Amino acid sequence: MTSQFWLWFDVIAMLAGGSLILAIGKRRTGHEEAHTVIHGIVPIIAACLYLLMATGQGSILLPILPGSATTRIFYFGRYIDWTFTTPLLLMGLAYTSMPSGLRRGGAILGMLLADVMMIGTALAFGASVVEWIKWTWFIVSCVAFLGVYYVMWVALLQEAGRERAKVRSDYVRDAAILSVLWFLYPVILGLGTDGTGILSSTTSVALIAIVDLLSKVAYGLLSTVSTGKLVDEDLNDEGKVTASARRAA
Amino acid sequence: MTSQFWLWFDVIAMLAGGSLILAIGKRRTGHEEAHTVIHGIVPIIAACLYLLMATGQGSILLPILPGSATTRIFYFGRYIDWTFTTPLLLMGLAYTSMPSGLRRGGAILGMLLADVMMIGTALAFGASVVEWIKWTWFIVSCVAFLGVYYVMWVALLQEAGRERAKVRSDYVRDAAILSVLWFLYPVILGLGTDGTGILSSTTSVALIAIVDLLSKVAYGLLSTVSTGKLVDEDLNDEGKVTASARRAA
Amino acid sequence: MTSQFWLWFDVIAMLAGGSLILAIGKRRTGHEEAHTVIHGIVPIIAACLYLLMATGQGSILLPILPGSATTRIFYFGRYIDWTFTTPLLLMGLAYTSMPSGLRRGGAILGMLLADVMMIGTALAFGASVVEWIKWTWFIVSCVAFLGVYYVMWVALLQEAGRERAKVRSDYVRDAAILSVLWFLYPVILGLGTDGTGILSSTTSVALIAIVDLLSKVAYGLLSTVSTGKLVDEDLNDEGKVTASARRAA
Repeated sequence: MTSQFWLWFDVIAMLAGGSLILAIGKRRTGHEEAHTVIHGIVPIIAACLYLLMATGQGSILLPILPGSATTRIFYFGRYIDWTFTTPLLLMGLAYTSMPSGLRRGGAILGMLLADVMMIGTALAFGASVVEWIKWTWFIVSCVAFLGVYYVMWVALLQEAGRERAKVRSDYVRDAAILSVLWFLYPVILGLGTDGTGILSSTTSVALIAIVDLLSKVAYGLLSTVSTGKLVDEDLNDEGKVTASARRAA
Repeated sequence: MTSQFWLWFDVIAMLAGGSLILAIGKRRTGHEEAHTVIHGIVPIIAACLYLLMATGQGSILLPILPGSATTRIFYFGRYIDWTFTTPLLLMGLAYTSMPSGLRRGGAILGMLLADVMMIGTALAFGASVVEWIKWTWFIVSCVAFLGVYYVMWVALLQEAGRERAKVRSDYVRDAAILSVLWFLYPVILGLGTDGTGILSSTTSVALIAIVDLLSKVAYGLLSTVSTGKLVDEDLNDEGKVTASARRAA
Repeated sequence: MTSQFWLWFDVIAMLAGGSLILAIGKRRTGHEEAHTVIHGIVPIIAACLYLLMATGQGSILLPILPGSATTRIFYFGRYIDWTFTTPLLLMGLAYTSMPSGLRRGGAILGMLLADVMMIGTALAFGASVVEWIKWTWFIVSCVAFLGVYYVMWVALLQEAGRERAKVRSDYVRDAAILSVLWFLYPVILGLGTDGTGILSSTTSVALIAIVDLLSKVAYGLLSTVSTGKLVDEDLNDEGKVTASARRAA
């Protein structure tokens, strides 16, 4: 299947996935509403940028080496997508770790800034033509990624530990899934045409299209459903409290 | 009158309007300060981008069709303006609906994201040369606009209903004015040189210059004055309460 | 020393400075964590953009006058740096003025918007080729800078006055340092190759590299250490209160 197939496939699948999340996600509490909105809009943003790439407006041809007549197709649209969607996914993760109210504003800000730095320097990696410059950016981007991991697995994990056990286990699961899925991006980009060129352009596009669907639609659905179950529990508990209070009165 | 006339006219009128709002808007409560700052700065941002377009730095020539030698002038400066000013105007509207304190963070975030999507895809519409791609972006942008309407007329209206009657009626009036004025943009853009080309370039520039003034300066003045009156009432009530408490003591 | 020397010098110095601030800055309270993160990340963002300029990807050649064959090197990378770092430094200053909790959201928003306007219009100044347009942008940028000063020396100073004396004196010192250091930027840019051309390109690069280090690393270290001392005092006071409460019991 061609690159075009995968780009259009993700336009449709992202739009369908985002609409599904918005349709099934509930808005019974402020926390649940924020969660649903974030996970519903992330795939819709991705759908727009996949449309930009599918129409040929989200990519340019770059020489594979300085002065070379051979070109590679560079999909810069991804980086516009990721500039918006990755901070939103991390905000969703922050909400998952602290359903009783966002704390640690400084740590969250640090995570978002590290994330934007990771995406910005990955764009510089992909756009670079000179080898040593390209790989310098690759390293810088990976270091920024470590900063994201750090906040995820230290500050947010700590906060999740202050909530009830179910929150902590949901958080660990979600953070683990994102950590693994996001780890695949530098691998694919490094092996793809933007990096060493071991993978063909079509293979890179296909692999990223699949990982994008997993980390936005599949992950978003899972996280939205879990949040819904937690809110169910909360509302049931409140119901019981109200009922027993009524009996006592 | 030429396009240049209208661009310079809006530079001056936006600057004057923004300065006026900053001068007459009060800052007696946190809510009133936020409101005044937002409505005062919105026209000043617009003045800067009109200056960019008036000096010729905020527009480029694009072929009217792929490969065509005939060109149209594409004012991309508008989209930089709108990327900043439309989220600010919506934030102002959110404040108007909830003077007792912002709630529904998730709904507001959703509205702002839909708004940025509306502007981003409108830019893609205006910059596109191929017909089917252009109109696809037009439709996507209109759907995002429906998302903005949805939050405005469901979540924010709900919250305004929880405040006192005067807040609700002010909110409905402001939301109705913005809804109508903003509806004119896709109509003008669709009929103008970026779209079907039924309107001449000068006519599109003039119409947008006028609607921009109405939706930023006139609307901003109205909303700022209303907020001032609400705060007057609040402070009077507090004065009465304090006075009667003093009498009671 | 060449421009390249200074650009690479700042890559290293910014990276070292940011890492140092992250290493010595403590995170005992939410306020201290936010402060440390902001001042640690600001130089690291600057390091990335200095790297972009050092590799030649963050600058372009522009004619010195319309149609002129003589060119000047325009470092647009600075403006990407400043778009992120100056709002962060102002956020840090807002925290310094209100350690007991951020207030005056509207005033802070106004300061950040004026700041982004200052940077955006400074970019237009640097990128302009026609003289009268260039200097119009210069004036607009300076007026926006006055807006930043205004909030700094009116609203934030007022709030700092509501905190204890040590907070106020720390705030006045920090605001005074930033006010003086930031004032040097328009002077250097105005005299440099982007402006009148009185300073050589190398001299402008060197001067800005030095002022950047002072206003990001030196200032950041000072502000981080001061915040640490304030938190020390708070925690000591709490210790005493707890101890005396225990004695009383």
